[in-house]
Amino acid sequence: MTTEPSSDSLEGLLDSARHDYKALGSRGLSLDLTRGKPAPAQLDLSDELLSLPNGRYTSADGTDVRNYGGLQGLPELREIFAEVLGVPVGQLLAAGNSSLELMHDCLVHALLSVVPGAESRWVDQERIAFLCPVPGYDRHFSLCRRFGIDMIPVPMTDAGPDMDVVERLVAEDPAVKGIWCVPKYSNPDGVCYSDETVERLAGMRTAAPDFRIFWDNAYAVHHLTDERVEIADLLAACAASGNTDRVFVFGSTSKITAAGAGVAFFGSSPANVEWLLGNNSKRSIGPDKINQLRHVMFLRDADGVRAHMERQRALLQPKFEAVGRILDAELGGTGLAEWTSPKGGYFVTLETEEGCAKEVVRRAGEAGIVLTPAGATHPHGDDPRDAVIRIAPSYPTLEELEQAILGLTVCVRLVGYERRQGLD
Amino acid sequence: MTTEPSSDSLEGLLDSARHDYKALGSRGLSLDLTRGKPAPAQLDLSDELLSLPNGRYTSADGTDVRNYGGLQGLPELREIFAEVLGVPVGQLLAAGNSSLELMHDCLVHALLSVVPGAESRWVDQERIAFLCPVPGYDRHFSLCRRFGIDMIPVPMTDAGPDMDVVERLVAEDPAVKGIWCVPKYSNPDGVCYSDETVERLAGMRTAAPDFRIFWDNAYAVHHLTDERVEIADLLAACAASGNTDRVFVFGSTSKITAAGAGVAFFGSSPANVEWLLGNNSKRSIGPDKINQLRHVMFLRDADGVRAHMERQRALLQPKFEAVGRILDAELGGTGLAEWTSPKGGYFVTLETEEGCAKEVVRRAGEAGIVLTPAGATHPHGDDPRDAVIRIAPSYPTLEELEQAILGLTVCVRLVGYERRQGLD
Repeated sequence: MTTEPSSDSLEGLLDSARHDYKALGSRGLSLDLTRGKPAPAQLDLSDELLSLPNGRYTSADGTDVRNYGGLQGLPELREIFAEVLGVPVGQLLAAGNSSLELMHDCLVHALLSVVPGAESRWVDQERIAFLCPVPGYDRHFSLCRRFGIDMIPVPMTDAGPDMDVVERLVAEDPAVKGIWCVPKYSNPDGVCYSDETVERLAGMRTAAPDFRIFWDNAYAVHHLTDERVEIADLLAACAASGNTDRVFVFGSTSKITAAGAGVAFFGSSPANVEWLLGNNSKRSIGPDKINQLRHVMFLRDADGVRAHMERQRALLQPKFEAVGRILDAELGGTGLAEWTSPKGGYFVTLETEEGCAKEVVRRAGEAGIVLTPAGATHPHGDDPRDAVIRIAPSYPTLEELEQAILGLTVCVRLVGYERRQGLD
Repeated sequence: MTTEPSSDSLEGLLDSARHDYKALGSRGLSLDLTRGKPAPAQLDLSDELLSLPNGRYTSADGTDVRNYGGLQGLPELREIFAEVLGVPVGQLLAAGNSSLELMHDCLVHALLSVVPGAESRWVDQERIAFLCPVPGYDRHFSLCRRFGIDMIPVPMTDAGPDMDVVERLVAEDPAVKGIWCVPKYSNPDGVCYSDETVERLAGMRTAAPDFRIFWDNAYAVHHLTDERVEIADLLAACAASGNTDRVFVFGSTSKITAAGAGVAFFGSSPANVEWLLGNNSKRSIGPDKINQLRHVMFLRDADGVRAHMERQRALLQPKFEAVGRILDAELGGTGLAEWTSPKGGYFVTLETEEGCAKEVVRRAGEAGIVLTPAGATHPHGDDPRDAVIRIAPSYPTLEELEQAILGLTVCVRLVGYERRQGLD
């Protein structure tokens, strides 16, 4: 009996991967690719914020920003981000330092108050479910889990969530109250929703009269190439379709200025804005308007935001290019994995063969390369194919990143070839 | 039939009050005594904040405060306020710009999650009630109303809420889940809870296993006299009584540094802190640590806080003295009203004869002096005796304040004598 050339070859590939993994382990690496955190050099771009507003404390209309009040946020900051987020300034709210907080609070208020169009509080309904395009953002899923909201996975396509599935689910089940969307440069796929997707989201018939699209436009101006992708205006499309109150728009400057000390935004229909302001008025006497003024002075206008994001891109693009280059060189043609080449946002998605992701992440961890847990991109941390790994290239230095990605490819080869051998 | 001397005298007093009120109306005043807002001169005391942290962006332990993370807040800021609020630093959380938000969120989390010691989520219980010492703080009552929590008024004494009533209510009704307390220089009475009150709050038997004291220590260092009143340590007393998880302590720098851009604090038992942090971790990736560092650099330590509050006192004390002086001069001996002389805090409570407060506020409003609506100090805005008026002396200039209080006394005389005449 002669040895099959393919088996021969697999043995050799596995040996080589094992050798490389052993060498990797001996290097004592300690690298972290887990979260989409800006690197210190990116934060340095906004260091002017650290001494602003530099004695000034009145807004354009003469308001003393040091005092209480101004629940909707500073008008001049809302003007800048009205353009950036595509929300009329009167329908935009500037709040605290986190859009996640605003999403949390919208869920809380929908649970405990009656959201416009609803027949009752969500908490009084037997079951509430949200559609979760997968892969998606783990913190969205954690919010659902925290509030006992059922999660229904919907596959992503390269034009957004599979709208045939979405339309069917929202039409047949009145318990489906919402969908999580990161419409531009999605987390983690980098997908940009097509005009058709936006149109269908706006126009679809929903069994729930109080259905809401949580439109987490986290990467609105976070381009990585010369092509500044624009997506269609869902807020306007909803209004045009007569589903005026369907969308909550979220955004923030967390990945524009300072990750922990930026400003978050909420935009929606007049009825929804009034609803949120009404509920917020019980919670707060107003946001940190000094920080909002600080941002106005630093960013100046929408062009200022775009110019600033070019400087961010200059730091990020080489990192994303390095990830692509190394993945191409090490895994290209192996059939062991596929990966995205996003035009913006913060992540690269690596898709291994089925059943390999958890083991790759485990092996990488043992070699000192910490990755987001496999499965985190799916509700309940359960990726049924065990294939998706989210790579966050922003935080490490370019050199650390290259080491980490190279090490990751070794783990993909090791686990992939081991699996193939097991299948033989 | 001869005219009674008392009636004669009343007629004269009423004539004089009518004359004064007419003169008041002709002055075209526009004065606002509604809210406990710091005056611009008070905010000026913290203007150094407007250019801090001035290039620095690392905390004592080397954390980059510009980035995500640090859910519990900056340790060095928590150290300062651990001493100020009497909470061990490990059990203290430094959060966003508003303690009201923290109170709101504690209610939300208790409603939607299971608070330590609870048998179920509050939202799943048929009825929830809070004890509301009256007069009290309208925003506390608004939170109850917003969440459908029944409010049970409890009379205040000069040592805190009437503990005989409190002990009876909490012992007999398991639906009573909490009590609102402003334990030092209370809003609006300026009452400081006695050691006995604190002891009884800590030790009392409650029918609800998940009873919580919302201890809003808003005026912990906000003295107005040389006597720096100290209150007993409720957190320690609860632990000593075996009711370790009974109290949520709240505080903030809103009336220390900047009213809209300060830092809020939450302190409690280890189990409660873990519970809040666990829930907050779904909501936020961390507070604005730059603003926390800014506060550390500005305040330095607990002595720095106290020194700063002496500067605040220098601005506030003359205003409170003016209020007392004018009330004495104009209403002393008339029997028309009583008023407080607080040793700290932000308010003077004026108590008219029964049935006069609404009319006094209305008449004052017509004369251009805006007061907090009568009744606001009671649940549902309903002061059953219609007697309590809350005066907030901080925001106007001393001259404006004197005009406003003088005008207010005219209204008290007018309404009081009119009422007496009606009773004749």
